[in-house]
Amino acid sequence: MIEKKIKQIVRDVNDFPKAGIVFKDITPILKDAVLCGEITTALAMQLSAVKIDVVAGIESRGFLFGMALANLLNVPFVPIRKAGKLPYKTIQQSYDLEYGSATLEMHEDAILPGQHVLIHDDLLATGGTVVAASKLIEKLDAVVAGYSFIIALDFLNGKDRLKPFSANNFALASY
Amino acid sequence: MIEKKIKQIVRDVNDFPKAGIVFKDITPILKDAVLCGEITTALAMQLSAVKIDVVAGIESRGFLFGMALANLLNVPFVPIRKAGKLPYKTIQQSYDLEYGSATLEMHEDAILPGQHVLIHDDLLATGGTVVAASKLIEKLDAVVAGYSFIIALDFLNGKDRLKPFSANNFALASY
Repeated sequence: MIEKKIKQIVRDVNDFPKAGIVFKDITPILKDAVLCGEITTALAMQLSAVKIDVVAGIESRGFLFGMALANLLNVPFVPIRKAGKLPYKTIQQSYDLEYGSATLEMHEDAILPGQHVLIHDDLLATGGTVVAASKLIEKLDAVVAGYSFIIALDFLNGKDRLKPFSANNFALASY
Repeated sequence: MIEKKIKQIVRDVNDFPKAGIVFKDITPILKDAVLCGEITTALAMQLSAVKIDVVAGIESRGFLFGMALANLLNVPFVPIRKAGKLPYKTIQQSYDLEYGSATLEMHEDAILPGQHVLIHDDLLATGGTVVAASKLIEKLDAVVAGYSFIIALDFLNGKDRLKPFSANNFALASY
């Protein structure tokens, strides 16, 4: 079962990025080419009932399986990036961090009004970044089709923050 | 022909990231799912005579087709990232920028001694980042199998800086 495989291979790194945090390191997954293929297929299968016109992946780890998923679903991939990285005209959305704030950007021509956009990231924690990504989608009058994660940290309740945008919320492994 | 398709779709953005630079924006490629598949296949075909045990992709845009290429070749993918992003034990390599310097990191257990590592990025410019990535590979006593880019800006002579590491240097579209 894919969840068991993921949990066996993901590496817990203590005190990263700071003291008290146990970071889920997905790089061991990337070293297993067979498992990478299985994960991409499993992500697509979870989404089989969801209408998806576009996959948007959040920089940087969301680019990995987000691009693979878009290719498998045969739909466009849209990068959502940190401020200042995208070269063309962008729209912005800021969000709060524990100390200070950060800003995400998307090209203003990345998606069309009415398109159903699946948001992918490797991991759902508190959901702050993904909420900001969702607001970017809605700013362009497109629809958040749902969310797709490799890992969800359910104890942080990120899912509750995403419900107002879409009830479609999938993860392959939950803690 | 793939080069013609790439050149038709890549968008020139003037004065990004600063005045006088004409930036090659690959995001229109990502919106064309069929072309993305063709590019991944073409990257693999260019490398058919090269022994590759691992594909290393450089953050962030190198994650997109680097991961796709690794999956197609059925080999591990290793992320090379900016300093402070990788959670586990890393090795570092600094390189000069026009003003100041930057540092790349790779997990110390990402590759094994003697493995043949293909380095992928979306675009080859002056080659400073890719040289730093190559030094990371050699620090772990592995071999730079070659280089794979979507686009190479030949007029910046990055290829010359990479020759000491490997003569295998491929790009799908050259300017």
